Amino acid sequence: MPRRLPSSAELRTWRDFIETVEALRTVVSARLLADSGLSSGDYVVLLALSEAPETRLRPSDLATTIGWERSRLSHHLGRMEQRGLIRREGFSGDSRGAFVVLEEAGATAFRSATVPHLTAVRELFVDALAPDQLDAVAQITAALRDRLPKR
Amino acid sequence: MPRRLPSSAELRTWRDFIETVEALRTVVSARLLADSGLSSGDYVVLLALSEAPETRLRPSDLATTIGWERSRLSHHLGRMEQRGLIRREGFSGDSRGAFVVLEEAGATAFRSATVPHLTAVRELFVDALAPDQLDAVAQITAALRDRLPKR
Repeated sequence: MPRRLPSSAELRTWRDFIETVEALRTVVSARLLADSGLSSGDYVVLLALSEAPETRLRPSDLATTIGWERSRLSHHLGRMEQRGLIRREGFSGDSRGAFVVLEEAGATAFRSATVPHLTAVRELFVDALAPDQLDAVAQITAALRDRLPKR
Repeated sequence: MPRRLPSSAELRTWRDFIETVEALRTVVSARLLADSGLSSGDYVVLLALSEAPETRLRPSDLATTIGWERSRLSHHLGRMEQRGLIRREGFSGDSRGAFVVLEEAGATAFRSATVPHLTAVRELFVDALAPDQLDAVAQITAALRDRLPKR
């Protein structure tokens, strides 16, 4: 074997890490859904639109902002449009003129979700860690991201 | 507001962290599937059975070992059984006598998957981090896990 494999301690760290972050994501998502009726995916779309000028974005810019594949985004937007959270303008013709627009129902749902969601993030993430651990998370995240294949 | 919400820097750390770990999981899973035809779920089931005495486990013990809900495990085992990776014994009668058993095809698939999978874990996780960062990951994982609701 030309290159060493991870030690059992390293593998245990890997498995615990991946499983714990997955469990954390699941708990935060479940609380968001119970508190507001929004999925995590709904929330990031509504957040991106809320922060955009005139609360509208081109689909390609929205996909880049939230880091999703276009096909995943397209399916998700269809469901959000049916629920009245967003609307799509100009999607039938020239796609360069298309926009995803925040609807009033989406803005309302986003506002009502925000405080409980951020409270969950504080309780389960920020307050779980010492300040130097939170700094370490940021550095570890950057190191892991640098190693990932570029999109 | 009686309790403070996360700062924008804390929220940025949270979002980057969750998105990066999700991307890492996706890349490692995709490499596993491409290298071996196994999903991450297949791999953890085969790993648990491989490490069990006589390569067999009661369904409840398997669920506990890998940390899955029983219903999720049951559906997944059905698909793995159809592919000949495992077999289920005694599932029709008294469930206390039931076992999930590693099949030869499952053992072969697991063995062929292991080196490429562990290589991916080394490249994308272990080698991405300095030794003190890997120690920090273990401590951060423990702190986050302690804050999660107990199963």
